[in-house]
Amino acid sequence: MSGETVITVIGNLTDDPELRFTPSGAAVAKFRIASTPRYFDKASGEFKDGEPLFLSCNVWRDAAEHVAESLTRGARVIASGRLRQRSYDTREGEKRTVIELEVDEIGPSLRYATAKVDKAARTGGGSRPADQTTSARSTSGSWDEEPPF
Amino acid sequence: MSGETVITVIGNLTDDPELRFTPSGAAVAKFRIASTPRYFDKASGEFKDGEPLFLSCNVWRDAAEHVAESLTRGARVIASGRLRQRSYDTREGEKRTVIELEVDEIGPSLRYATAKVDKAARTGGGSRPADQTTSARSTSGSWDEEPPF
Amino acid sequence: MSGETVITVIGNLTDDPELRFTPSGAAVAKFRIASTPRYFDKASGEFKDGEPLFLSCNVWRDAAEHVAESLTRGARVIASGRLRQRSYDTREGEKRTVIELEVDEIGPSLRYATAKVDKAARTGGGSRPADQTTSARSTSGSWDEEPPF
Amino acid sequence: MSGETVITVIGNLTDDPELRFTPSGAAVAKFRIASTPRYFDKASGEFKDGEPLFLSCNVWRDAAEHVAESLTRGARVIASGRLRQRSYDTREGEKRTVIELEVDEIGPSLRYATAKVDKAARTGGGSRPADQTTSARSTSGSWDEEPPF
Repeated sequence: MSGETVITVIGNLTDDPELRFTPSGAAVAKFRIASTPRYFDKASGEFKDGEPLFLSCNVWRDAAEHVAESLTRGARVIASGRLRQRSYDTREGEKRTVIELEVDEIGPSLRYATAKVDKAARTGGGSRPADQTTSARSTSGSWDEEPPF
Repeated sequence: MSGETVITVIGNLTDDPELRFTPSGAAVAKFRIASTPRYFDKASGEFKDGEPLFLSCNVWRDAAEHVAESLTRGARVIASGRLRQRSYDTREGEKRTVIELEVDEIGPSLRYATAKVDKAARTGGGSRPADQTTSARSTSGSWDEEPPF
Repeated sequence: MSGETVITVIGNLTDDPELRFTPSGAAVAKFRIASTPRYFDKASGEFKDGEPLFLSCNVWRDAAEHVAESLTRGARVIASGRLRQRSYDTREGEKRTVIELEVDEIGPSLRYATAKVDKAARTGGGSRPADQTTSARSTSGSWDEEPPF
Repeated sequence: MSGETVITVIGNLTDDPELRFTPSGAAVAKFRIASTPRYFDKASGEFKDGEPLFLSCNVWRDAAEHVAESLTRGARVIASGRLRQRSYDTREGEKRTVIELEVDEIGPSLRYATAKVDKAARTGGGSRPADQTTSARSTSGSWDEEPPF
């Protein structure tokens, strides 16, 4: 795809990531990032927290399993991906629209933490074989499945 | 502010911008950008439109007046700003949350158009005097007013 | 292409854009953007200019002609594109590497200016016919020509 | 600072990070990220590597120590920060300019790896006491020291 709205979000997971599989067997992890800006409060002369932004995120395939294995509630992360709008009907038959992040790349922030990194064995777990040699971004255009959440 | 979620959106205005003034006299323009990605459809061998993303935007002060004067429905723009979450109550007393863009900088795209640019006279129109020498980004932290829409 | 380093730069043109054509007839405009951050100087209690960043930019096809027609030295712009590294040999036979911006989308900023926008007639001027239906980003991968500067 | 050129780079470390300390005792880690785009080659019908972008990076204080402890040559990372131009004189007295990344936040990518994250104890190691409550971005404006590389 070209012309997508690319964004990087830095913040903390509000909960443990939830890992599921689509009917065709693709792994997808869902989680929410709370990103809290800091501003200088002149009155008190101190830095304070601004209004947090909460963004629902999906990550697919191998990365989904790695996220579920590596990150827990509260973890500070850097996530890069594309904003995507999704519409759905409420139980009352009302139409709602939400903006979510389709994550292309995510990792734990090293600002307040260290990390022991383990390169994953290339077993193809959580990945449809056809996607092995392509990037998440380039395949997403023809990805027909919805997250099973 | 630091730690804000910065983003650039490229797309078309869904309507003419709406210009209003806060009780204290600050100009603010509101509009919506529709950003439509393009993807290559293997079946047809052609590029096609993907799902559009609709993002509500606010821009303040001088820039608000310049936007209202320069841009109309359908105009293709580049807008750079910070994602911001806003909560409100519906008439039925339900809580809703929307994600909007606080625009720091915006301009008409020159991809399919030319533009005759006129530098604005520095009259301070649409701007609170105290903000004259500061940037939109640096003042936004202490900006207490809500858009009057 | 996927996995490119996408960036938005806001700043002022250091000179009028220079328009040229490749041997195959494609238009390309070259220019430089000076982006100057602002910071709060505690000593003086005022906002001051930080060190500017100078970034060389190329823009192709129709947009190149629109840029040359619309923007002049000093114009404040928003430019979105992909960082690209280019190596060349100096006259002394030394290897040098520069980082440039391949601009996908650019426009005059409305922060300090208004603009009268004119939608370009779709004549295909400055564009290779085959590129008409594709985006700059998606064709750039197979673009073999170097800017003629 | 406001008006800085913010960027996210995804790629692999070309070497182990190098950790040093400024005369005042602040930790800084230096490393280079190679970011390689992927494009679809119509001729072969396969995805291929494009030209890599090499970006020199600095990260300061606690994060510098965490980077040195957590990342090694080849590690795939996501790094978010601000582009900065630096000029220096060569031994031959020639002026050179390089564009570098002042990293605000970095982490190992979970695309091809898992990570065991350990929250750092708040000892203030590698950090000037005065910076404890401020963010890297907000202090950088008054940061007078150059990286000791």
